[in-house]
Amino acid sequence: MTTGPEVPANRTATLTDVAKLAGVSIATASKAINGRGEVRATTRVRVLEAAELLSFAPNALARGLLSGRTGTVGLLTSDLEGRFSIPILMGVEDAFGAGQVSVFLCDARGDAIREKHHVRALLSRRVDGLIVVGSRTDPRPPLAGNIPVPVVYVYAPSANPDDISITVDNVGGGQLAIEHLLSCGRRNIAHITGEAGFQAARDRADGAAAALAAAGLRMIGHRPYFGSWDESWGRAAAHMVVEQHPEVDAIFCGSDQIARGVLETLRDLGRDVPGSTSVIGFDNWDAVAAHSRPRLTSIDMNLKRLGAVAGQRLFAAIDSATAPSSEEFPGRIVIRESTVPIG
Amino acid sequence: MTTGPEVPANRTATLTDVAKLAGVSIATASKAINGRGEVRATTRVRVLEAAELLSFAPNALARGLLSGRTGTVGLLTSDLEGRFSIPILMGVEDAFGAGQVSVFLCDARGDAIREKHHVRALLSRRVDGLIVVGSRTDPRPPLAGNIPVPVVYVYAPSANPDDISITVDNVGGGQLAIEHLLSCGRRNIAHITGEAGFQAARDRADGAAAALAAAGLRMIGHRPYFGSWDESWGRAAAHMVVEQHPEVDAIFCGSDQIARGVLETLRDLGRDVPGSTSVIGFDNWDAVAAHSRPRLTSIDMNLKRLGAVAGQRLFAAIDSATAPSSEEFPGRIVIRESTVPIG
Repeated sequence: MTTGPEVPANRTATLTDVAKLAGVSIATASKAINGRGEVRATTRVRVLEAAELLSFAPNALARGLLSGRTGTVGLLTSDLEGRFSIPILMGVEDAFGAGQVSVFLCDARGDAIREKHHVRALLSRRVDGLIVVGSRTDPRPPLAGNIPVPVVYVYAPSANPDDISITVDNVGGGQLAIEHLLSCGRRNIAHITGEAGFQAARDRADGAAAALAAAGLRMIGHRPYFGSWDESWGRAAAHMVVEQHPEVDAIFCGSDQIARGVLETLRDLGRDVPGSTSVIGFDNWDAVAAHSRPRLTSIDMNLKRLGAVAGQRLFAAIDSATAPSSEEFPGRIVIRESTVPIG
Repeated sequence: MTTGPEVPANRTATLTDVAKLAGVSIATASKAINGRGEVRATTRVRVLEAAELLSFAPNALARGLLSGRTGTVGLLTSDLEGRFSIPILMGVEDAFGAGQVSVFLCDARGDAIREKHHVRALLSRRVDGLIVVGSRTDPRPPLAGNIPVPVVYVYAPSANPDDISITVDNVGGGQLAIEHLLSCGRRNIAHITGEAGFQAARDRADGAAAALAAAGLRMIGHRPYFGSWDESWGRAAAHMVVEQHPEVDAIFCGSDQIARGVLETLRDLGRDVPGSTSVIGFDNWDAVAAHSRPRLTSIDMNLKRLGAVAGQRLFAAIDSATAPSSEEFPGRIVIRESTVPIG
């Protein structure tokens, strides 16, 4: 091995540096590093040792141009500030492994024009695939135009059944919540939830109604209390429910924020939770559920897993044409102190 | 213009397609699109029209290899789940403009090994620069190894003064909070805050003490109540403060979550907010501050602007060697119903 010059501290090592240090031609160094067979094993070892010594990172760009793959993926969100994108995004990253695949993050801010710009930029960077994360569970229009790479829609499904969509089973989530309250011995259950315009609100309410019907019961008030997703609605609706239906012994809330408002009103009214009334939330948002008083039982949508599955499906679709599929994943219940079996 | 073949629906247009449609050679089409001068103006217009017609997106990868710039930037966070990364990230994106520069997002999850992996992968993708977003305001070690591109540290400064760091003025934030309470006529002010091990907690407390001293006052209890950043601590500490110092007429809280716990305890104790006691939070976290009862006055750290400035500084550093700089940006107060001037 010749003693080649050191790489100056202010630049990264190139293939030329590696070839020099290993005492081989650039062509040979390239073949050795790319694992093509026409290089003797001893030469290959020498080149790889030199590469290691120089911290040589093969130029991913140049590799991408040759292989037709770039090892990059575009992640298009519409609502980074919302709480749902982040765990999904972390799940995607877990699926790809640190540094194996790099993720371009684009936030369209709910703007279709901006989304188009982003998609065009991502395609011009030759991403191998796209993951589109919705901010609500209503089906969304598929990406416009001619998309030459696989696309996976997550949280919000594509309205086109020929696309690949990964979603949460909100009907099942509503059932889970009610079944837990029933198994705690509750029979007079109200449902306070968000805007009826949201598929998520309707699905959770449908699941709740079905689980009650299966037990021969109906919701308190005979319908869900649709309103908004925040605490103020939770406070107001809880007042109304308790006044009109003092027999209520459990409240299933469509979000943890609503549940938080419900807890406040019940405390104001001197109703003990979970003693006289059980409360269950939805989302398992740690900042709310784990710090309210009492701490809140809630349905967790397993968003990190959802993101990981989306990453896996995208990988599969990049590797080989995959059949379109719509997959729905169940949530799980996280039990804390706001629900308890009654003696 | 010859009528070239249409591009099949399942692939993106290539330079060859554009050249065919414009009736010129591939070399000429390339020169026309890259804006090099050796092409007649009429030919250039014809090529650009063809490119527009075919939605031709020039291959950013190939362009990057030629120019030495890729138009990509790596954004390295350590805590995506924390609330602070996201607005910073959105600010960075705003600074770069949709699709102008693409951002690789990497979450190191607070793990130094993972961070190293990510940095190596980003460098192998030839990013033009890196933005490192911290999850707390304590100085962090600079990125290890030989980084051949500019780096901007944001929220958490680099421990190396030769780096470019963009941070929040937490001392000033503490001052802002106290000055507002003083101008509301409050004199007996307590400070309940998070862990003393956090620079942010110490800085805010120092700012508060300085503003009180300037008015000839001291904190209730003569020291900050350090504890943890959550509601439970806010509830417990408020009980203690009111019991030991019933004269307290205002509480400055180190976070909105602490403030929320303080509000709950004051209500439980029958103390009117803001009538008898003013409460101010820190972070202006909408989910808490805008929905608590009463709604919470809070200090906003302008994190989106912080991210935008980081993006601008990185741009400048990519364009030309910039001098190292440490810049601190002030927060602002957002006044809601939990503070009010007393008659």
